[in-house]
Parts: sequence; C-alpha cells; structure tokens
Amino acid sequence: MELSVAYLGTGGPAPTRLRGLPSVLISREGFRIMVDCGEGTQRQMRLSTGLVRVDEIYLTHFHLDHCMGIPGLLKTYDLNDREEPIRILGPVGTVQFMEDLRPFTGRLGFHVEVEEISDRDVVGYPGFEVEAFETAHRTTSLGYAILEDDRPGKIDPDEAARLGVSDGPSLGALQDGRSVTGDQGEVRPEQVMGEDRPGRAVVVTGDTGPSPRTVEAAAEADLLIHDSSFLSEDSERAAETAHSTAAQAAGIAAEAGVKMLSLVHISARYHVGAVVEEARETFADTNAPRDYDLVRIPFPEKGPPELVREGAIRSGEPEE
Amino acid sequence: MELSVAYLGTGGPAPTRLRGLPSVLISREGFRIMVDCGEGTQRQMRLSTGLVRVDEIYLTHFHLDHCMGIPGLLKTYDLNDREEPIRILGPVGTVQFMEDLRPFTGRLGFHVEVEEISDRDVVGYPGFEVEAFETAHRTTSLGYAILEDDRPGKIDPDEAARLGVSDGPSLGALQDGRSVTGDQGEVRPEQVMGEDRPGRAVVVTGDTGPSPRTVEAAAEADLLIHDSSFLSEDSERAAETAHSTAAQAAGIAAEAGVKMLSLVHISARYHVGAVVEEARETFADTNAPRDYDLVRIPFPEKGPPELVREGAIRSGEPEE
Repeated sequence: MELSVAYLGTGGPAPTRLRGLPSVLISREGFRIMVDCGEGTQRQMRLSTGLVRVDEIYLTHFHLDHCMGIPGLLKTYDLNDREEPIRILGPVGTVQFMEDLRPFTGRLGFHVEVEEISDRDVVGYPGFEVEAFETAHRTTSLGYAILEDDRPGKIDPDEAARLGVSDGPSLGALQDGRSVTGDQGEVRPEQVMGEDRPGRAVVVTGDTGPSPRTVEAAAEADLLIHDSSFLSEDSERAAETAHSTAAQAAGIAAEAGVKMLSLVHISARYHVGAVVEEARETFADTNAPRDYDLVRIPFPEKGPPELVREGAIRSGEPEE
Repeated sequence: MELSVAYLGTGGPAPTRLRGLPSVLISREGFRIMVDCGEGTQRQMRLSTGLVRVDEIYLTHFHLDHCMGIPGLLKTYDLNDREEPIRILGPVGTVQFMEDLRPFTGRLGFHVEVEEISDRDVVGYPGFEVEAFETAHRTTSLGYAILEDDRPGKIDPDEAARLGVSDGPSLGALQDGRSVTGDQGEVRPEQVMGEDRPGRAVVVTGDTGPSPRTVEAAAEADLLIHDSSFLSEDSERAAETAHSTAAQAAGIAAEAGVKMLSLVHISARYHVGAVVEEARETFADTNAPRDYDLVRIPFPEKGPPELVREGAIRSGEPEE
C-alpha cells in the first residue's frame, strides 16, 4: 500500500531559484493530504505531480510563506470544474484566515470545509489518523503526525498447518481477519496470527524551535520532516526567531528514534551540504530533499524509507 | 537609454509547466514598472531578473491570476529590509484590494502608497508618463501605455558649422538643449536642431476583448502586449469571457500601427505556434514571448524592437 511524500516546496521564508515555498503532499493509496501551501504551490504541482486532487490541506500556521498558495489553488480547481469538497484544517485562526481570503477566492463551485484543531486533536480517516501537536514558533502553530492504524500481525503458516489450514485462499482469508474451516474445524485468525504490527508514520513540523512535543509525536516515525532554518553557529538567531538549527532537528530525530529525517526551510544563506553535515553528526539518516523529490515509505519488512531525487515528477507530454 | 520589457509570467488564468501567471517588468534606465503581479511573480523574478527593486506596480484588474503575487513580493522585500516606498496603482477597487490584503501583509518596514486611476488619467515621471486606458473585460479594467517624452530633434552639423560651432563639446551642449558661444556669437539650440522626435512607447492591455480605446492608446507604439486567450475558432467563447482571439489582437496591432505585437494569456488548450500563426496572417511582426524572454526597445534610429529569448535571465552564481 503506497505511502509517499512529495516535496513541493522546501524553501522559506522567501523562495529561491531552486526552492519554492513550503508545501508537502502526502499520498496514501490515492488519498492526498497537503501540509502547508505556500505561494506558488499550484505551479509546483504542475511542475511535478500534476494538478492532482488534494483531499485535505493542513496548515501549520499563518505566516505568509506557508499559506498564500491557497486562494490560487482553489481558484484553479474551480476553473477545472472541481466538484469534490476540500477540507482545510489548522490551528486557531484558520476560520479567520479563510474568511480573510473570501474577497479573493469569491464563489467556488465546490464546498470548502474549514476546521480548527489544537494540540492532541486527532482526525480520523479509514486506515489512518492525523494527530495535531503543538510546535514552538512565534505564533500558534501545529505540526501533524500522519499515523497509520496498526496492521494485523503476520500469519504463522506452521501453526495454521497444525490446525489443518494450509491452502492459499484460506491463509489469505485468515490474514484478512476472517475465520475459515480447516481439516479440523473452524480456525479463527487470532489462533494463527502474531501480534499487531504498527502502521507507518510521517510527521511534519512546520516552523518550530526544538520541542519535546515533537519528540513525543514523532516517536519511532518512519519520516520526520523538521524545520532546519539555521546552522548551530547561528543558534541565537534560531532561538530569537523560534526556528531550529540542523543539530537541534537531528537531536529531535535521534530522541524520537525516527527512521529518516528530512530537513526543510533551510535559510538561503547556507550551503545545504553543510546543513546536512551538521545534522548527520547527531543523526545519520538525514537528508535535505529538493523540490520535486519524493520519499517512498514501504512497510518496514519491505525496507527503509527511500528518498527518490525528482521522484515526484510525473512523466508526461510537454505542454507546448 | 535602456528600455526593455521582461516577461515574468506569460500564462493565465492558471499556471502551466512553462508559463507563470501574468506579470511584465518594464525597465527604463533603472526605473522599474511592473504591470500585474500574479501568484509566483517573486519566484519568477528569482528565476530571471533577480529580486530587483520594483518602483511601481500597475494592476490591470483584480482577477486572482493577475494580482495574488503582491503580498508575497511585499513580504519578501520587507524581509530584505527594503526601505524605499512602493506605489501600487490600478482601477477603482485598488484601495479595497490592498485593504483586503492587510491581514496577510501585516506591518511592513516601507511605505506602500495606493492610488486609483481611471481612463485617460496620466501619471507623470521624469522623461515619460503612463496613460491609463479602459479595456473591455468583465470587470473594471485598465491597460497602460508607457509613453516617453518627445526627444529633442537631431542636430544639423552643417547648420551649426555655418553658425561657427563645430567642436564636439559645443555640439553636445546644443544637443542637450544649452546655448553655446561659437565663432560668430551665441548659438541657440533651436537654430540648429531638427523637429522633436517622438519617444518610445510600450502598451500593455491585461485581459480584454478587442477595444477601440486600445487602438487609440497604442497608436504607433513600439510594442503592444495584448490578450490573446483564444483562436478564432473559439471566438464565441472569447466574446463570452471578454478576452481576445489572436486575430483580434493582430487587428488591433495593425490598426494602431505598432511595431511589434506580443501575445500573452494564451489558453493552455492551444499549440502556441498555431496562435502566433493566426495573428501573423493579419499582423506580421507578432510573437508569443515565453517566461523570462525580454524585448529590447532601442531608439528607432538604432533599429526595431528585438525579442531576446531568455534575455531576462541574469547570469549569476547558482544558489546552492
């Protein structure tokens, strides 16, 4: 079951030649959650994933670089005759933010639902949930943990055989949680299945200083996408502006025991290689994705998360 | 004296892979006037001209694709400690538009002056003026004609010699409009200069159907940048949406007697080559600039306007 993160904009607070404003698109079996939507996000989609249908947009906070792509994206969906509703969730202030946008978005042909959430709120979906966690920025701000439900344990084929079930279809039914009738009568899934296995987890912070709440929310996550605005040499500036240094982001990743750390929002003053290097001293599995990169997150038994350079770019005909 | 137009965004109403939302940057001797500022314009600048100081922004109308780059551009200027004021001019509604943006732009460290203008209003600058002209869209909309002042005529060196002036510095002073003393006494400029020569003119329409006001405002302009949303095969749709076909844009250019016609806002449904071809049947000197192209407009005696592919891209070090 596909779980991936497309990096639509890895820069901030101002765009550079190579990096657009913050936005990531998390896809799970065709359901798409965008976290943040900086100015230019619809164009970044055109340049990579295509203008796919986003189902929900989570905003981390309302600093301009994280949210000014919303009106244009909604307008373009409208131009393309979108009918499906979209939901926009974020911290206290989201309702006002969307109200303030109304003069610009005008009437749209689809419903925009707006919902304010706060620390530890959980939004449920079939097969996963999104947990909000408070981050440490200069304004009310939330990060989001996309947490898959536990998966059923792995079937023990020897135990199943002992109970008289060995044909493929019956083993498949047991794995899917249904009882079957074997040579020796009924066999229930719990008789042959190992313990539930944890689902996958992707955690996105938005802008934040280092915070114990992030460690908690990102515990054992497959991927943590964390603010890394500064190098340690500028840690005072990081503290003043409530951002993180690369070393701090790496410290959070190490403490949370995540599998992969992606650094974003790196100040344009630095060489990105130096930023990654600083983080790797504390946490080895660190990268700094570029715009249009993709992280694929397989189930753990299939391998670790994998960064695919330009993996978000859909191949297609040139437009002109 | 340099006069050029950098095409920052040639698409619309939605961005495509190759074309950003509407914005052109007109530079005259380091003074920069932007016409329209669609979402992503600050990034388009980063990718071409660099984030240069724009002095004035003229808005043609308030449809989202033409103006949603304003808050981000202003914020980024602020982040870069801009101190120079900026003026934003546009039709009735500009004050309300900027007021509606206030929740997003917040406090800025430089002054933003806002001014509403209307048909036939003229804004003066040293050496040129901008004349607003009403265009024919579905909302109050203006186009803008950037019109240089007449230049002094060319000096007649034979006549000057006859009056006793032949040295370079004295001829230069006469050309600059100052009297000089020659071998036979004072010589005034008007004694040796030909008739005033017309200044250069660049005209930008924004979104519009064909309009006699555009013909009038663009009379003998060096460059007309005109809406060309549709091909003639879709002329009904063009009329319904108050846009122009390529043939209509070319008709305007021919009637106005301009030197060069640039087609913009071409619907993504068409092959751009076909759109240019349709226009050229009526007006030969037609092109469809791509993002980051530049048109250089020399004084007429130095040659015709010239389209330079990717001419707006400033060479520089890569950013990472």
